[in-house]
Amino acid sequence: MTNVFGSCPIPGSQHDRVLLGHGSGGRLTAELIQNLFVPGFGNDVLARLEDQAIVGLALPAASGGMRNESTNVAAHGPRIAFTTDSYVIRPLFFPGGDIGSLAVNGTVNDLAVGGAIPLFLSAAFILEEGLPLEDLQRIVASMRAACDAAGVALVTGDTKVVDRGKGDNLFITTSGIGIVPDHQPVMSIGFARPGDAVLVSGTVGDHGVAIMSAREGIEFETVLKSDMAPLTELVQAMLGACPEIRCMRDPTRGGLASTLNELAAASQVGVTVDETAIPIRREVHAACELLGLDPLYVANEGKLVAVVPAADADRVLDVMREQPLGRNAAQIGRVVDEHQGIVVLRSLIGGERVVMMRSGEQLPRIC
Amino acid sequence: MTNVFGSCPIPGSQHDRVLLGHGSGGRLTAELIQNLFVPGFGNDVLARLEDQAIVGLALPAASGGMRNESTNVAAHGPRIAFTTDSYVIRPLFFPGGDIGSLAVNGTVNDLAVGGAIPLFLSAAFILEEGLPLEDLQRIVASMRAACDAAGVALVTGDTKVVDRGKGDNLFITTSGIGIVPDHQPVMSIGFARPGDAVLVSGTVGDHGVAIMSAREGIEFETVLKSDMAPLTELVQAMLGACPEIRCMRDPTRGGLASTLNELAAASQVGVTVDETAIPIRREVHAACELLGLDPLYVANEGKLVAVVPAADADRVLDVMREQPLGRNAAQIGRVVDEHQGIVVLRSLIGGERVVMMRSGEQLPRIC
Repeated sequence: MTNVFGSCPIPGSQHDRVLLGHGSGGRLTAELIQNLFVPGFGNDVLARLEDQAIVGLALPAASGGMRNESTNVAAHGPRIAFTTDSYVIRPLFFPGGDIGSLAVNGTVNDLAVGGAIPLFLSAAFILEEGLPLEDLQRIVASMRAACDAAGVALVTGDTKVVDRGKGDNLFITTSGIGIVPDHQPVMSIGFARPGDAVLVSGTVGDHGVAIMSAREGIEFETVLKSDMAPLTELVQAMLGACPEIRCMRDPTRGGLASTLNELAAASQVGVTVDETAIPIRREVHAACELLGLDPLYVANEGKLVAVVPAADADRVLDVMREQPLGRNAAQIGRVVDEHQGIVVLRSLIGGERVVMMRSGEQLPRIC
Repeated sequence: MTNVFGSCPIPGSQHDRVLLGHGSGGRLTAELIQNLFVPGFGNDVLARLEDQAIVGLALPAASGGMRNESTNVAAHGPRIAFTTDSYVIRPLFFPGGDIGSLAVNGTVNDLAVGGAIPLFLSAAFILEEGLPLEDLQRIVASMRAACDAAGVALVTGDTKVVDRGKGDNLFITTSGIGIVPDHQPVMSIGFARPGDAVLVSGTVGDHGVAIMSAREGIEFETVLKSDMAPLTELVQAMLGACPEIRCMRDPTRGGLASTLNELAAASQVGVTVDETAIPIRREVHAACELLGLDPLYVANEGKLVAVVPAADADRVLDVMREQPLGRNAAQIGRVVDEHQGIVVLRSLIGGERVVMMRSGEQLPRIC
C-alpha cells in the first residue's frame, strides 16, 4: 500500500467534510484537486490539470506486457486525448437541452479544446429508483442526437440504480476518447506568455443563466437558452489558421473568471481583461442583475477561451467569426508580465478590480 | 433530432419507472439495455453487449476531420478497448477493499477479459455534501495502490458535489482504456460452440457475501473478504496458452448464473453446469444459507469465466492453476446443442434444474 497522505485534515484545508463549494469549480475545488487528488494519484499527466489527458498509446515493454511505471506515458504510438465528467445538473430538462445532450457536448468539448478529434464516448447512468422511464428515453434520444451532431459514437455504457432518496433522478458520467493529429503541437494552460491575446468565442453566461431561470421558474421576455454545442469544428479551424495557439479552454463551471484565474496561476503570468470587450447578451445581463449573479462566474457550454500570440490574434478572430459558433468572437484582454497569478478587470467606468477565484458555489449543480 | 423511440412505455417493458431491479444485472437490466439503450444509441459496437468496446483508432477520412458514420468503427490503426462502470456500493469500506479499489479493479477487469492490456483510467467522483474528507483520502490512497498493482495510470478525473440527501456519500465512475495486442483474435460472448468447455478461475460468491456480511454486521468465524483483484496477468497467460479461447467474462453483478445465461443467449447454445464442480468456499456456502442467498447469483470481483474448445480445456486449466488468481480453477460445465438459450444445472443429488436469469435484485448495490 502506498499512502502518500498524512492523517486528516488535508494539508492546506480548513474543512474536514465535503462542502457544496468543493464542487463549484472555484477555489475549494482547486484545493481538493491540488491537495488530495494530485498527490494521491501522483502522476505527471494528471498533475498537468488540463481538461483532458493526452497520452501516447503503446504497449509497455515491461515484463509480461504489464506496466508498473505509472508515470511512463511518453508519446510513442498515436496520441490520444482522454477525459471524463459527471453531470449532476438540476433540473434534468432545460431550455436548449437536457442532462444527456449536456453530457455529450461537455465531454466532446473537453477533448476538442485539447486539439483532439473526438471519436468515442462512454456513458454511465446512475438512476434513482422511481425515475420515469419516459424521461430516460427522452434523454437517451437527445444524447444520440448530440453524438450524431458531434460526429462521435457512444460505444460502451453502464447502468446502476440507487434506492429512492439516495440519488437525484439521474446522474450521467461520460468519458471520451479523441485522437490528436500527429502534426498538432501540444497546447497547455501553462504556455501563456506576456503579450499574448486572450480571445473568447462568443457571449458568456448563457448556459448558467438558462439553468437558473428554469430552476427558479423565472420567465423573461425572450427564452434564455443554454449555449451548448460541440466545439470541434471551431477549434480545428482555429488551429488550421494558427498552430501556435498556446491553449484553449471551455469556461464551464466557474465561468470565464475561473478559467482566467487558472490560466494566470498555471502560466505564472498576469491577465488583464477589458469589461467592455466581453460579449454578453442583453438578456443575460438583465437576468444576472435580477438573480444576483456575476456573469463572469456563470457557466458556458459552447464557448471557448483561447490564448494566442498577439501577432496572430486578428487572423484567428477572422477565422473564428466565419464559424457559426464563433460569430461573436472577441479579444477580451491580454497576458501581462505584472501581477503574476492575478486577473485584473478594467471596468466600464475605467476603474480596475481584481477578479478572484471564488471559494464556493455561485450556482450549485449547473452541470 | 433522431428519435428512434415511440412514446412510452418502452416496448417490451411492463414498467414505467425505474426499479431497483433495473440495476441488478439480471433480466430487468437486460431489458433496459436491449429495449432502451441499444436502439437509442444504435451502433453495432454497443449492440455487441460485451463488457468493453473494442474499436479501431484512426482519424476518419470524412470532411474536416469530423465523422458522422457512427457505426463505421472498423479496425484501422491500433485496436483499443474502452469501458466504463459506475460504483454505488454500500458500505464504502468492507473486508478486502473499498469503493475505490473496487472501481479500479472492476474497470481493469472489464478491459482484461477482452484480451486488452489496461493502460489508462479516469475517475469521476460524485460526492455528497458532508462526506468526511478523511474517508475520501483513504479511498484515493486505495485507488492509487490498486492502480499500481494493476499497472495502470489514472490520468484524468472530475469531482462534483451534490446536496445532502441527494446522493449516498460517494459514487465513483471509472473508465478505462487498454490496447489489444495486434495478434490477439477477437473474443465474443457470441462465439461459444457446442462441445466447448466452461471454466471458472476460482471460488464464486466471495465478493457479494463479504459485502452483505459487512452491511448486515454479521460475523463469521473467519472474516469473509472480497476477492477483488486485477485479472490481466491471468488472462494473458491463458491467451498465451490458447489464442482460440472463445470468450471470457468476469461474473460480477448477477454472478455466475447471469453470465452463463448471457452466454447461452448470445451464442444461441445451451449450457450445462455440474453443481459439484463449482468451487465455493465452505464459509461462503454457510453465509449464503444464513443470508438466504444463492451463491450462483452472488457477485465476484476477481474471477473469470472462460469458454474454450474442449481439446484445449486441460491445457488452459493447467496454465490457470499456475497463476495466483487461478489456483482453484475448474471446469464447471460445457456448451451443448440442446436447450438453446438455457442454462441447466445438474445438482448434487443428480437432479436437473434450469438456472434462470433473475428478474430483480438479490443484492442491491453490491458494486
